[in-house]
Amino acid sequence: MSTTTEQLSTKHLLGIKDLNENDIQLILDTAANFKEVLNRPIKKVPSLRDITIANVFFENSTRTRLSFELAEKRLSADIINFAASSSSVSKGETLIDTVNNILAMKVDMIVMRHPYAGAGVFLSRHVNAQIVNAGDGAHEHPTQALLDSFSIRERFGDVAGRKVAIIGDILHSRVALSNILCLQKQGAEVMVCGPTTLIPKYIKSLGVRVEHDLLAALQWCDVANMLRIQLERQEIAYFPSLREYTMLYGLNKQLLDSLDKEITIMHPGPINRGVEITSDVADSKHAIILDQVENGVAVRMAVLYLLAGQRGA
Amino acid sequence: MSTTTEQLSTKHLLGIKDLNENDIQLILDTAANFKEVLNRPIKKVPSLRDITIANVFFENSTRTRLSFELAEKRLSADIINFAASSSSVSKGETLIDTVNNILAMKVDMIVMRHPYAGAGVFLSRHVNAQIVNAGDGAHEHPTQALLDSFSIRERFGDVAGRKVAIIGDILHSRVALSNILCLQKQGAEVMVCGPTTLIPKYIKSLGVRVEHDLLAALQWCDVANMLRIQLERQEIAYFPSLREYTMLYGLNKQLLDSLDKEITIMHPGPINRGVEITSDVADSKHAIILDQVENGVAVRMAVLYLLAGQRGA
Amino acid sequence: MSTTTEQLSTKHLLGIKDLNENDIQLILDTAANFKEVLNRPIKKVPSLRDITIANVFFENSTRTRLSFELAEKRLSADIINFAASSSSVSKGETLIDTVNNILAMKVDMIVMRHPYAGAGVFLSRHVNAQIVNAGDGAHEHPTQALLDSFSIRERFGDVAGRKVAIIGDILHSRVALSNILCLQKQGAEVMVCGPTTLIPKYIKSLGVRVEHDLLAALQWCDVANMLRIQLERQEIAYFPSLREYTMLYGLNKQLLDSLDKEITIMHPGPINRGVEITSDVADSKHAIILDQVENGVAVRMAVLYLLAGQRGA
Repeated sequence: MSTTTEQLSTKHLLGIKDLNENDIQLILDTAANFKEVLNRPIKKVPSLRDITIANVFFENSTRTRLSFELAEKRLSADIINFAASSSSVSKGETLIDTVNNILAMKVDMIVMRHPYAGAGVFLSRHVNAQIVNAGDGAHEHPTQALLDSFSIRERFGDVAGRKVAIIGDILHSRVALSNILCLQKQGAEVMVCGPTTLIPKYIKSLGVRVEHDLLAALQWCDVANMLRIQLERQEIAYFPSLREYTMLYGLNKQLLDSLDKEITIMHPGPINRGVEITSDVADSKHAIILDQVENGVAVRMAVLYLLAGQRGA
Repeated sequence: MSTTTEQLSTKHLLGIKDLNENDIQLILDTAANFKEVLNRPIKKVPSLRDITIANVFFENSTRTRLSFELAEKRLSADIINFAASSSSVSKGETLIDTVNNILAMKVDMIVMRHPYAGAGVFLSRHVNAQIVNAGDGAHEHPTQALLDSFSIRERFGDVAGRKVAIIGDILHSRVALSNILCLQKQGAEVMVCGPTTLIPKYIKSLGVRVEHDLLAALQWCDVANMLRIQLERQEIAYFPSLREYTMLYGLNKQLLDSLDKEITIMHPGPINRGVEITSDVADSKHAIILDQVENGVAVRMAVLYLLAGQRGA
Repeated sequence: MSTTTEQLSTKHLLGIKDLNENDIQLILDTAANFKEVLNRPIKKVPSLRDITIANVFFENSTRTRLSFELAEKRLSADIINFAASSSSVSKGETLIDTVNNILAMKVDMIVMRHPYAGAGVFLSRHVNAQIVNAGDGAHEHPTQALLDSFSIRERFGDVAGRKVAIIGDILHSRVALSNILCLQKQGAEVMVCGPTTLIPKYIKSLGVRVEHDLLAALQWCDVANMLRIQLERQEIAYFPSLREYTMLYGLNKQLLDSLDKEITIMHPGPINRGVEITSDVADSKHAIILDQVENGVAVRMAVLYLLAGQRGA
């Protein structure tokens, strides 16, 4: 792979908010190169052989952690995993102290998942390390948005001009905000669709369309990104009820077939089959859900690789 | 180590049921080569340097997981560990979706422990990857049976013609069924021994002897494989009680000394000292319990190595 | 790094008690070499490439485990992690059986954290492997004491002749005993300071000063090692109460400023800011708390490296 001389405009990846259009293009182009590497028999490159990365997860997230871990291994980085459940956090240590301790052990980058919005931004102001936000509460999940854009670009050639509907629980989703910002910066049109109770009021200020009728959203869009209903988060009282939700906002084959065009179906996973999406749709040729997962490793390799190029810059 | 041109007749290792006699010999011969490697100062070989293996454990099993992990490391494979307790499984994702997600990250093989019988077989029909069954409920645990046969072969030169008694809780054991099949395919005679309540009715259809008297079993056999009483599984109501069990089926020095011959004692571990086996027996020269553990790494290396040779075949 | 021909007088690192003065100097000198390595761009050395180390933690300890794990990775050792919470220990297996099983898989060294005092010593008498004690109950934590001494030596040039006050909960601390022994063997003077209820009676027999007044201790010492109040161990009923403790034994800026000299502040972490130490002190130039963490990796590399040199000796 030819190394690029271009650099990101930012030292961290805290959110899509901080990236400019060039940053996004650079990440997606670099990811395309890494995707080729991942399809070779030898999937490993020595790029980050002298870098140590700590995956610091204050919240469970198997799929995101595995994806980052594989990206780091493919780049030959040294890795340590820190899970908050078995950690000093329960001993009353502050976030800054916890991370400073990890950094004192000569760790170069922190990949962090945290339940609170803004945790990464806060940390980046108080510690001397590069931070990659792997999801902070219902705020941002930038690598998810980047892999989603990568997958749209792969399908359509370009993100600019595409109509993307993000459908479901916008309110509790870290995927929604990052996607809206990432798509808009690349010139896509974005709509959110869901029940009034699951669409935050501030969303209109972002310049997105708001739609409450699923069929209307599907008729408008090229791409439908179906968010998941977070069954496991019992603190979320869903209104409408799950059954009503599925009746009104569940995507099924019949709905897809009623359209006079083909649309592309995305989902950040894990899927609740039969809730926000039926099995025949999830497994159809319209769905690029597993491509998203595959692209996630390449996109995360690109992010880590480019940030490593920023060290000392 | 000279590479073999022989291949397994199967793409997966789901159970001993699917292996023919040649497969078993090939695995045990290959394991013997790897055991030599493990006794060298440098225990690592580059054989699986371009392979990524996911250890997917839906049930705790420290010793089996460590053994597989070490086997994978000795073969230079890349490894990711997925433990169900901290996973998307609690988020309502199906088994197939979970595994397909892992595979989409360019993982080549899945080593899976699952609480349900047949989980590996089911999975192998629905995903495009090689599956190694690391125990599925009370069904099969093929690598345990292979390492047990390896250990018998090491002790006696050959498995054929040996008389092996499997003693204890046959009903709840994944070790018993795999061992019966593996031993019979190699021409050994097999007996199961235990209280009526812990021997499943179907066992006679497998062509094994059934014995309820421990002394009679010991007098008959060359090898006694003492299964463990699963104290930690409280859903199992043992009848007879533990104390009665130990009185009737616990192996002690006095019993061993009363035989007019020497027999070899095996145990899959972890041992409940003083329950199914006394300490003096477990620590005696008759016992090859730690050899079994050592051989486990070599046998698992052989299985992974041979299955890797099947890729694309 | 030039390899030393000198050797430790011990095969294990069970406690500072077993080390002589030369051992301590050898470890600290070797650690100084490794600290240089850790400050290079390439932090890895191939020294333990043929060694497999098991980190066996029967008690959570994120920071100690991460420090050992990084030390092992920098030395290129193969690593397996065994956490008791997900282990056969809950299945009734003995400590010796658990460790013998790990060793049978061709593991060379055991790094063990255990809740019971003397667990490492006990184990070393019953298994055939090198044991590194990573903390045994409230008994010893030798690598912590060594990294503390390393940090003092780094600050002052020498440990001999320094006056070190260990302040706080001496009774429940594994750090205190190891530090007392380590400092005394190097010719430092040691004082313990805390409320009567948190200082064990036997402490005077070690030849240390005992002080109950914090200001007097600070006026005496060159170095104050502030132990942490273990908020998470609810079985410890603190008397005095936390609030009283902080009033009497909490270190704050005002106290430091009232001294007619500068003293060095240490803390084994994790810090309870506002309990045993205020933030302005913890973050001041007097504190070398993060140096201690950094030095921990170098000291653990030294210990593992030197013990590996003892193999077969």
